[in-house]
Formats: sequence, structure tokens, C-alpha cells
Amino acid sequence: MMLDAPLITLTTDFGTRDGFVAQMKGVILGINPRARLIDVTHDIKPFSVLEGALVLKGISPHFPGGTIHVAVVDPGVGSKRRGIVLYTEEQRYVGPDNGLFSLVVPKDKACEIREIQNPDFMRPEPHPTFHGRDIFAPTAAHLSAGKPFEEVGPLVHDPTMLSIPTVGENAAGLEGAVIYVDRFGNLTCNIDKAMLSKTVGTVYVGDVIIKGLSRYFGEVPEGETMALINSFGLLEIAVNQGNAAQVLGIGKGEPVRVFWA
Amino acid sequence: MMLDAPLITLTTDFGTRDGFVAQMKGVILGINPRARLIDVTHDIKPFSVLEGALVLKGISPHFPGGTIHVAVVDPGVGSKRRGIVLYTEEQRYVGPDNGLFSLVVPKDKACEIREIQNPDFMRPEPHPTFHGRDIFAPTAAHLSAGKPFEEVGPLVHDPTMLSIPTVGENAAGLEGAVIYVDRFGNLTCNIDKAMLSKTVGTVYVGDVIIKGLSRYFGEVPEGETMALINSFGLLEIAVNQGNAAQVLGIGKGEPVRVFWA
Amino acid sequence: MMLDAPLITLTTDFGTRDGFVAQMKGVILGINPRARLIDVTHDIKPFSVLEGALVLKGISPHFPGGTIHVAVVDPGVGSKRRGIVLYTEEQRYVGPDNGLFSLVVPKDKACEIREIQNPDFMRPEPHPTFHGRDIFAPTAAHLSAGKPFEEVGPLVHDPTMLSIPTVGENAAGLEGAVIYVDRFGNLTCNIDKAMLSKTVGTVYVGDVIIKGLSRYFGEVPEGETMALINSFGLLEIAVNQGNAAQVLGIGKGEPVRVFWA
Repeated sequence: MMLDAPLITLTTDFGTRDGFVAQMKGVILGINPRARLIDVTHDIKPFSVLEGALVLKGISPHFPGGTIHVAVVDPGVGSKRRGIVLYTEEQRYVGPDNGLFSLVVPKDKACEIREIQNPDFMRPEPHPTFHGRDIFAPTAAHLSAGKPFEEVGPLVHDPTMLSIPTVGENAAGLEGAVIYVDRFGNLTCNIDKAMLSKTVGTVYVGDVIIKGLSRYFGEVPEGETMALINSFGLLEIAVNQGNAAQVLGIGKGEPVRVFWA
Repeated sequence: MMLDAPLITLTTDFGTRDGFVAQMKGVILGINPRARLIDVTHDIKPFSVLEGALVLKGISPHFPGGTIHVAVVDPGVGSKRRGIVLYTEEQRYVGPDNGLFSLVVPKDKACEIREIQNPDFMRPEPHPTFHGRDIFAPTAAHLSAGKPFEEVGPLVHDPTMLSIPTVGENAAGLEGAVIYVDRFGNLTCNIDKAMLSKTVGTVYVGDVIIKGLSRYFGEVPEGETMALINSFGLLEIAVNQGNAAQVLGIGKGEPVRVFWA
Repeated sequence: MMLDAPLITLTTDFGTRDGFVAQMKGVILGINPRARLIDVTHDIKPFSVLEGALVLKGISPHFPGGTIHVAVVDPGVGSKRRGIVLYTEEQRYVGPDNGLFSLVVPKDKACEIREIQNPDFMRPEPHPTFHGRDIFAPTAAHLSAGKPFEEVGPLVHDPTMLSIPTVGENAAGLEGAVIYVDRFGNLTCNIDKAMLSKTVGTVYVGDVIIKGLSRYFGEVPEGETMALINSFGLLEIAVNQGNAAQVLGIGKGEPVRVFWA
């Protein structure tokens, strides 16, 4: 099931300034010169496992089957937290077992998780502060070159899962929260498309009351606040050609109330 | 006329933090696994179509013939603005018809523009806020894989063009303006090399009078202001090893006067 | 000795906003379409040759033999400073002769340095402010495509070397300094692993006294300061899940004292 030129994506909180990511790339290409490397982002907020998990969930459906995603947001590096490989039907993931893959573990489909224990998948004497370079990058490279998944290490049945804030529901509507603020200041909520089973009348967030859902930004006048289903399939509060987080003065954790029409 | 490994560049205002660009890359590689992806920049100032247009103009002459440039600075996404493909003699461009390609439409050579209407070039049910991923990326990928340009959609004869501030001219010299500030704080003007038909005596900008043109930064002492023709072929105000925008306290729109010697 | 798909890395202070790096990539791929491009970083502090030198030292051991590293941190561009190519046993480097390669010139192994003088390795009429695009990128591309190193230009026997702050030593311990602050605020010192010949008792930095060395961040409580050998093999002051530069209020140049146990 190897891709012709196997794709490996990289998602980290390393930034791009210091060359850490380049070290990982050098290691991968030293092991498998045919690997194709795609940067997802290196600007995850330092140590924010939830941000990393959300970005991974966002990108995964858009990559070809067999893509290997290396993700490193790893405040516990060097401690006893496990390193894991997750194989779902479609995609593969390599990184720390700290909840980073919570949102891509399929709920109703088969998947298999193994702990990285086999030193053949690591560099000799991995540095205790840089498993990204010395364990996760080489594991991904070896898998992409055809080393069998089964040899990575023993099966894991209890992966660490993040607790995502849940959405409250009553006859009048839903109560959720902002869980992510993107580069444009758009506010992503934990309310997904499927939860919006009835027609939305109003959305309350901060001091603002929004009438109904828009389909795209330009449907409201410039500078006006709107709600829409964003490209992740989640409810989003946005300002046409503006920065909603700044304009509304709100951020992650802010409650969002949806009332049915 | 297909390249062996077709080059696709990406220019957006998406930033790199949220994985939006990676979603576009995943889509492209799912359609054409042989495509080679080059990031131009994802740090165009949000919604600044002019900045995007200037960067595209800057990079285009340096890419091999047949390169496909996907550009998305798209405040009107989801609205009635058209999506287009522009074929010049040398290069191809895919993105919104909002002026982003104004500066690469050739003035005196043949080119052909088509509106993207054929759903075979799009993903099913494009999301109204993410045409970058669901329309422009797949169009570029299909073109790179050999789908004919003629099938994209009908010809466009009236592409949207930006109005760039014009340069005034009289017997004494030229009057232009700063149109772009780069990462180093260098101030790029709308006065190009060809307009400087006589010897430059002095350049006035903000409170500063600059004598003549330099060829490179180190020709003046550290911290001193100079004018030169930059690598885009445009007049630039710079400070040797300093940030001219900060040192002079000026930015985009500032008038620049050139007096002949 | 050509690689199958030759690797070329790029390290600059150009940022990614303006498309300068993309211009270099376009030039490289126009000369050698088979080159594979890896970004190391474009966020070197503008004009900081030392930062560039440290990053190059950090990444070099992790890239496959034969990799060509183009590095451009070049405040003297256009002046009389030389452009050079450095061949070590393992790696190749192309860029300005201003000390940028000081830390990768091997101390005890053979290496060869040549000045770039042959116009066949340059673009016609190189722009005096953009040797990255018009001299260094094409030189790397031509070398990657098999043009012989010997034809680049004459041998250089006196490359410019940076003076790195030296480490003081006495019976009680060592006195060094912070030389680099990374994205996480971790403070890298000029004291390397080999200098720590005895057991470390205490490390003094700013107002803080640290007992002994840790192996990884999570060994101390969250928010606590520690010292460890980082993944570059250098002494590092860090705060578990915090930003040491901010927490301690110190930066580059700060003295660091190590006392033996």
C-alpha cells in the first residue's frame, strides 16, 4: 500500500526560526530520499495540544490515502509519555500520546495504535528534548520506506484523549463555546453542522446578537458580524473583511448560544 | 506542453498557522501526485489585493515557462465575483477575478482568460468561504495534469484591473508614491527604471533629501538613507542596515519626488 | 557524486512575506528542474550573521551527504565582500563570505573554499542588492546539476571567520554567555557538552541559581528553571512549559556561570 512518492506532512509548535523543522526534514530524507514533505504548520501555539489536534482534524480529510502525518506538540517530551503511531483506514499519524490525535481517532471505524518501542525506527541515542527529530521523524521515514507497521511496537488500547468542551442542548437551542481563533480572527465554535438540526434564529456571542446564518462573508456589509458554517464544518463567528476576535473583544472559551427560529 | 513535474506556486493571505494552505496542497496532490508545490508567501496582508498583485509581478519572471501560479487574496469569496484562469505566453494563473492578476496581464502580448465554470475542475459542493481549496487548487491541479485550458469555461474579455496610483511627470522630474513596504522596511515606489530617463539629481521623501541613486546598500554609511533601483526594477528608498519605514516614520502612500540633475 | 534528486536547502533573513525566497526557488528550478528544495528558515534576525551561522551549524549534521546549503544573511550585498562556495567532506555551502559559514568550516578535516567568479554560475547582470537570487541560487543550481566545483573560481585560503565569545575556565568552573534565544525562549549558551568535563553543581544565570543538570523539561515542575544539554549539544537554560527569556528577563549576551559539584 506504499505510495509511489510517499507523502509526509509536518505539524509542530517549533516555529520556523531556529531550524528545528529542517533538522527533522534532513533526518527523513536521509532515511527515505523519495519522501515528499509537506509543511502543515509550525506555528501551533507553544504546548497547545488542543490547537494541534484541531488543525490535524481540519487537514486530514484533504490528503490522499496513505499520507503519514508527523505531529509534534509535546510539552512532556523526554518524560514517560508514550510515542505512538496511529493507522486509520485512510491516514497514518506519528507523534506523542498526549491527546494530539484525539480528534482523528475514528469513532466508528477500525484503527490500530502502536507504541514506538523498536529502536530500529529511531536514531541511536535519541535526545531527550527532541523526539521530533530522533524518534517521530525517523519512524515516519521508515514507515514511508516500507518497514512494517507491526514492528513499531506493541498495540495501544488506551490512547490519551483530550476532553473537548461539550455542547449543551435544550428545547430552545444549543450552548457551546469558541474553541479556536484563526489567523483572520474568525472564531470557531465546538458546534458542528450536524448539531444544527433546526433553523437557526439567532446566535448570541459576547455583546452581539446575530440573526440567522450566512453562507459567505460578503453576504453582510463590510465590518458586520455574521455566523456561518466554516470550511471545517463548524459554526464560526466572523466579521466581513474584519477581525472578529478584535472587533468583539472575545477569544477562546467565550460562550456561544444558538436559538432555534 | 506539460512540464515533466509540473510546478504549482501558492500565494495567499491565509497565514501558515491554521493549516488552510496544507488543505489546498492535499487537494492538489490528491488530483495530481506529480505536482511540485512552491510556496510564494502566505503572509500577504489580509485582503490586500494590491500587495498580492505586486508579489505576483515580482516573482513571475523568475519561474520556468508553464508554471501555474495559484493566488488567493479573496475578500469577495462566495459572492458573485468570478474565478478565472489567465494564460500568458509564459505563465499560468488561477484565482479570483478581483484585480489580483492586474500586474501580470501583459500589455502588449497575447493572453487568454477564462472563467472557471466547469465543475470537472472543482471539488463537489465547493464551500462558499474556501474557493482556494475547493475551486482554485483543483483547477490548478487538473490543468497541471493535462486537462485542457479550453474546457475551464468561457473566455473573459473584461478582467477586473486594479487602479495603481500613476506617476506625475514635468520638466523638473517625477512625482510618485510608496506602494509597498517590504520585510526590511525598504520602501518600494511606483516609479520604474524606464521612467528614470534622465540622471537623478535628488529624491525627496518625507523629511529627507537624497542625493542621486546608489547601486547597493553598503555604498552609504550604516544608518544612512539612500535611493536605488531595487530587484523588482522599481525605485526604492532604503536605509543601509536599517528599517527605512521606521527610521523615516513613513509608509504606503507617502509621496516621492524625483528631480533631474 | 551527484545525488539522484539533489537537495538544496535555503537559509535567509528574507522573511517569507515578499516573495524574495520564491524568486530564488524559481531561478533554481529553471536551471535544475530536478533539484529538491528545503526551507531551513527565512526568519534569521535581519543582518544577524551569527544567528545564521548557529542555525547552519545546528542543521548540517542532520542532512544527507552532498546536500547544498544556500545561506544569505548579507548586509554587505553588492559591496566588495566575496561570494563563496565551501565544500566539506559531507556538505556544500553557498553564500557571502562574511562569517556565515564560520561554524561549519571543519577544524580538523579537509575542506575547500572557492570564490564565485565564473559568470557561467551567475545570471546575466546580477542585481547589486539581490545576489541571493542572481549569484548564490544559480551557483547552487549549477553545482547540483553537475557543473564542476573547480570551475566556480579561485581557491580561498582566508575565509572571514566570526569571533564567537570564548568560555572562561578556572578551577571552580566555567564562565560563558547566552548566544541564542530560540522560539520557545530557551537560552542557548556557548558552553558545549565537551567542556562540561566534571559534574555540574550549580549554574548561575541572571538572578537564578540552578542545581545540577536536567535531561528533559518535564523533570522539573511546570514553570521552574532548569539547565540541560540541548539538541545542539550546548548548555541551555529553560523553563518547563515556559519562556525562559521572558520569565528571567534576560537575553543574548547574559553571562552564565557553571560551578563544579
